[in-house]
Amino acid sequence: MRALKFINNKLSYIDQTKLPLKEVWRRCMSLEDGFSAIKRLEVRGAPLIGVFAAYCISIAVKDFSLDKLKFLNQFESAIEYLKSSRPTAVNLSWALQRIRKRVLENTDKNVLGLRRMILKEARSIHKEDVLLCQRMAESGSKLINKSDRILTHCNAGFLATAGEGTALAVITRGHKVRRDILVYVDETRPLLQGARLTAWELMKNKVPCKLICDNMAAYLMQKGGIDKIFVGADRIAANGDTANKIGTYNLAVLAKYHKIPFYIVAPFSTFDLSLANGSYIPIEQRDPDEVRVILGSLRIGPKDVEVFNPAFDVTPSKLIKAIVTDKGIIYPPFKVNIKKILCQKKK
Amino acid sequence: MRALKFINNKLSYIDQTKLPLKEVWRRCMSLEDGFSAIKRLEVRGAPLIGVFAAYCISIAVKDFSLDKLKFLNQFESAIEYLKSSRPTAVNLSWALQRIRKRVLENTDKNVLGLRRMILKEARSIHKEDVLLCQRMAESGSKLINKSDRILTHCNAGFLATAGEGTALAVITRGHKVRRDILVYVDETRPLLQGARLTAWELMKNKVPCKLICDNMAAYLMQKGGIDKIFVGADRIAANGDTANKIGTYNLAVLAKYHKIPFYIVAPFSTFDLSLANGSYIPIEQRDPDEVRVILGSLRIGPKDVEVFNPAFDVTPSKLIKAIVTDKGIIYPPFKVNIKKILCQKKK
Repeated sequence: MRALKFINNKLSYIDQTKLPLKEVWRRCMSLEDGFSAIKRLEVRGAPLIGVFAAYCISIAVKDFSLDKLKFLNQFESAIEYLKSSRPTAVNLSWALQRIRKRVLENTDKNVLGLRRMILKEARSIHKEDVLLCQRMAESGSKLINKSDRILTHCNAGFLATAGEGTALAVITRGHKVRRDILVYVDETRPLLQGARLTAWELMKNKVPCKLICDNMAAYLMQKGGIDKIFVGADRIAANGDTANKIGTYNLAVLAKYHKIPFYIVAPFSTFDLSLANGSYIPIEQRDPDEVRVILGSLRIGPKDVEVFNPAFDVTPSKLIKAIVTDKGIIYPPFKVNIKKILCQKKK
Repeated sequence: MRALKFINNKLSYIDQTKLPLKEVWRRCMSLEDGFSAIKRLEVRGAPLIGVFAAYCISIAVKDFSLDKLKFLNQFESAIEYLKSSRPTAVNLSWALQRIRKRVLENTDKNVLGLRRMILKEARSIHKEDVLLCQRMAESGSKLINKSDRILTHCNAGFLATAGEGTALAVITRGHKVRRDILVYVDETRPLLQGARLTAWELMKNKVPCKLICDNMAAYLMQKGGIDKIFVGADRIAANGDTANKIGTYNLAVLAKYHKIPFYIVAPFSTFDLSLANGSYIPIEQRDPDEVRVILGSLRIGPKDVEVFNPAFDVTPSKLIKAIVTDKGIIYPPFKVNIKKILCQKKK
């Protein structure tokens, strides 16, 4: 299962706003299609947005002028336009910037050549993401034993990437290799990615799972019902402190108290070594109505009630047992070992 | 504000499933009405259920046989039937048991006399509950300082009792006396009593509050944003272990980790000294659709996804700083001090 397909130069994707009720595949045929798909969260998940945007540009440029100067102007505007669909998504601007750089380095080529180059770059961004996921799944699945009962939060699966996923790929691979896994899925308020996306993905992949509300995890741990926790990450600081979906830190504290190993799964691109620790990671406050009105359609709180709605929290690295990456599993001391892994890469 | 009225022998109550959108008052005119009101959570909150059930029996017996033997048979069946509407709620069986005992001690009376006695007993259960709430609010509010930021879970306010409430009465009284309190309200999935009821109550009582999702409490504590936690209780064992709404144990573990005092507020009737510790408290598993379909109207999970949905959890007494009761505040060692307080009562 993939969240996106690019076959015969045609880009199609699952409309994630329709999940889990319906699996609707849509075609992206223009820049405007792509913009609206990202804007409306039909396509979501940091790595997936990057790949999707890259392909979208490769489709858009087919309609641009054959005059090189005009083409380059149209190309620049298209990049800026697409970027603005989700201004905070780092992977989006990263992928577009990468394509832009490639074009600017090759302005000696003609328009047809540039088009081919853009498509080639989009394909390699895609391939790389698939490969990263495979590597994480391979490393991480070794941490899973037969019959493990695993807890996860939010969605870090194939719906969030162009490949098989991050944390959820580890779990799914673990199930295929070791068998008899049971996955508890936090529903993940306020946007319910666990209930809507992760539960759907696991069922699609025939991995046994049970949905719980976020506040039930502690009880499960108390009863000895959880062996391991795997979650994704939005950003990881140089010392291993990890920003991820709100509620992740809650689980990490509970895991510590109940002596349950707590694992992060993320590719190298999630590490931000410019930040010494998690206190430098900015935490976005989101619309109060995400809490007051569930999924924009069910009001649960008084109309004017004040709301506190942070999108992420930061888990201090001392609560993390290990970080599974595409370069292997990183154990404490994180400050030293993260650097070691990222330097290896540069060689 | 009260959640229940008994005026001119007519029992009416706020249908709590309709809050916070509408304040709908309903009449309870039969045993079946009462059973369904409790079962469907239109009436909820341990002490309120007790008072409501007592009045409900006093209404039901009006339709019973005038033949004493038949009456007593019908009465016994009615008690058992009503008890089964919410098996974990100790106040429900406590209130019904109290009425039953009164009747069994007075079987020399005729049916009309027994009816009067039942009504009288229901009225005194009601009056006592109002008084208990007052006493808890008085004792507990002394634990609150000016400008405290307090977290609460579920609903332990006037909607949960026949009086001003338990934990929320302490907080509201604390605000009136000390001022500048800010209350963070856990939305309390799956049934969202925090968002629907507690936020509504606090706004009704003009106590400043902010609504959060259950998984955000840890982040608030990490940032030093919570000074104290007050929650109610469904049942307290002889050693102080406390069953309360699912998610309470989660908060207690977080409080321990962040060194935040965690208080239980409950009247003496919530204590069940027949249970040595919390492991004997039965935990009701509820309908999976409470999780999959929010408030019966918004589907969030795949149709057939399995669900784990415990209604309560048990907080071990070692995580509790003190228990605020109508007899005063009980500190550890709980096993000794709970007994002391409950024996005082018997004198």
